[in-house]
Amino acid sequence: MKKMALLLMGCGGVGRQLLRHIVSCRSLHATQGVHLRVVGVCDSKSLVVAPDAHTSELDDKFLLEVCRVKEDGSSLSKLSGFGACQVFAHSELTAKVFNMASHLGKSTGLAVVDCSASSETTEILSRAIDLGCCIVLANKKPLTATMEYYDKLVSQPRRIRHESTVGAGLPIIASLNRILSSGDPVHRLVGSLSGTLGYVMSEVEDGKPLSQVVKTAKSLGYTEPDPRDDLGGMDVARKALILARLLGRRITMDSIKVESLYPDEMGPTVMSVDDFLSKGLPLLDKSICERVAKASVSGKVLRYVCVIEGTRCEVGIQELPRDSPLGRLRGSDNVLEVYTRCYNKQPLVIQGAGAGNDTTAAGVLADILDIQDLFP
Amino acid sequence: MKKMALLLMGCGGVGRQLLRHIVSCRSLHATQGVHLRVVGVCDSKSLVVAPDAHTSELDDKFLLEVCRVKEDGSSLSKLSGFGACQVFAHSELTAKVFNMASHLGKSTGLAVVDCSASSETTEILSRAIDLGCCIVLANKKPLTATMEYYDKLVSQPRRIRHESTVGAGLPIIASLNRILSSGDPVHRLVGSLSGTLGYVMSEVEDGKPLSQVVKTAKSLGYTEPDPRDDLGGMDVARKALILARLLGRRITMDSIKVESLYPDEMGPTVMSVDDFLSKGLPLLDKSICERVAKASVSGKVLRYVCVIEGTRCEVGIQELPRDSPLGRLRGSDNVLEVYTRCYNKQPLVIQGAGAGNDTTAAGVLADILDIQDLFP
Repeated sequence: MKKMALLLMGCGGVGRQLLRHIVSCRSLHATQGVHLRVVGVCDSKSLVVAPDAHTSELDDKFLLEVCRVKEDGSSLSKLSGFGACQVFAHSELTAKVFNMASHLGKSTGLAVVDCSASSETTEILSRAIDLGCCIVLANKKPLTATMEYYDKLVSQPRRIRHESTVGAGLPIIASLNRILSSGDPVHRLVGSLSGTLGYVMSEVEDGKPLSQVVKTAKSLGYTEPDPRDDLGGMDVARKALILARLLGRRITMDSIKVESLYPDEMGPTVMSVDDFLSKGLPLLDKSICERVAKASVSGKVLRYVCVIEGTRCEVGIQELPRDSPLGRLRGSDNVLEVYTRCYNKQPLVIQGAGAGNDTTAAGVLADILDIQDLFP
Repeated sequence: MKKMALLLMGCGGVGRQLLRHIVSCRSLHATQGVHLRVVGVCDSKSLVVAPDAHTSELDDKFLLEVCRVKEDGSSLSKLSGFGACQVFAHSELTAKVFNMASHLGKSTGLAVVDCSASSETTEILSRAIDLGCCIVLANKKPLTATMEYYDKLVSQPRRIRHESTVGAGLPIIASLNRILSSGDPVHRLVGSLSGTLGYVMSEVEDGKPLSQVVKTAKSLGYTEPDPRDDLGGMDVARKALILARLLGRRITMDSIKVESLYPDEMGPTVMSVDDFLSKGLPLLDKSICERVAKASVSGKVLRYVCVIEGTRCEVGIQELPRDSPLGRLRGSDNVLEVYTRCYNKQPLVIQGAGAGNDTTAAGVLADILDIQDLFP
């Protein structure tokens, strides 16, 4: 049985779901000859580790208790009394992680798994790579930091996986890596990579006012608490940067042209969420409605997409043929069209749910299993 | 630089394209720290190998000459005078391959790559697995042989890849393996996995007579020389069997319900291709036309698909919602809809060109790169 040591950073929805998946897949993974040995779990404040990271692990009962404690909004430090583990406070956290990474990285192997949404993990991940560890990310921040950090994180291309940074568990990164490694050059990527904005654009296409669509999306739980976090496009821009860098573009967030669906004067520093929804947004209805009508004349529809082509990397509304995979998109699915030498007239299309803790965590788990051959 | 020894079986269009891809990707793969060392190439009659498979390789000039010679319709034995190589006739072929597999499999590693369309490679591949080799297949035959052979071929799941057996280079097998390894159960697969039949069904949907559509498809080079090889559905059935077995179904070709688009009395033993096209097919126009009209009444369209769900594994015409990924399919693209726990209401969809030597060989090459961590 191959044993893979894991250190999980981040106990939010995705991290907890990953722990639950790991526990529920025990017998499946046993049939595949793999055992996932969780040697440590941390959030932004504390780290809990198994008594001896070389030989022991946090057992399933403990991992489920981690989920329970964090779901209650409590601190990981509460677990000190629960079972065999050591708890470290924030001040000791980084040093202890480096300590584990340096001991395990080049012996039993260690995968550092980042399910947080923090930029503070970037330094830890880049050190972990130097120490011989593998890294698996659902967190977009480290891959959208400076080029120096990016170069470091991907310096051992076989030892990094980050499927769930774009389109949750959709096989986007894995498929692009396959295409790239086979020497098939990617000419153009066009993707609707925000379920929220995908939903919004297909609803306004049906003639509904933008303001009403956003309110409905919010009430359905499709948006962030402040819908401007979706409408501003920065989350899509982050995904676009990750894809562009995967294709070899040496760019930063600043290089990406991002179209926000609301103007600066309706920004979070100017008006409250309620004011934005009731007073700001309705002022935008007419303009969007006119753009929809204008596109429609030439058989096109509006989609909020990222476009990566040549040196171009843009995020915003594009007029796309109604009769194309992106044009036909309805609802909150993500869609990516990939144009290459092999897929030139008709693109390779990958489509499906691109959000949700379950599918995001499933993508992380698939990534972990994918690097098993690097473990002794 | 990691060196991966490869033995290629099959020098048809896919095999030759693979050799060309390998040669043209030299500098790309060097930047990734990998060198593909082709130590042998065989067709059904001869085997050419490098002088010393442990240390030498067939160089790029030689590999391109292999392509040239085979394209001319000549025998590999013609290469004996071309450069440093040994040529073995058919009588010695299998023994020599086993010899190389047993020497390299557990030392430098060896990937046996099957780009043939022969069932004779099955025994070689299954022995190669026993001898510690990796196997990479574009050839469907070995994976659709008996369950005994299948079990043997997948007995070391990390050491087999076969993306290009279904949908050419489309990332279907890789994506399903990711889903399965993350414990997300696949409830249902529905796929249009024949470009020819995809084209035929979308054309008859537009009201064109089946007989005319098939003639056009043949003239466009979309069909086999005898279009009945496509219309009979056996090629789709083979792909369905590979997918069903991937999902854990222990079935054989006999278990698959296959609907042929032509009746037995129009079979190849009864009438010639010309007679089939001019006299047989037109007799089928009315019935298909009626089925199209009937489906249309309830907002559905006809698609020739494989359906795998529970114990069901069928290949044939299904009525599918016009407003679904498969229903919206036009032309010769392949489409697969995957329903799982994570993708339950809306499926994961993978769509694109599912045929062609270029994309098929690219899929094989991506598979080869994917197993690099198993090489020392």
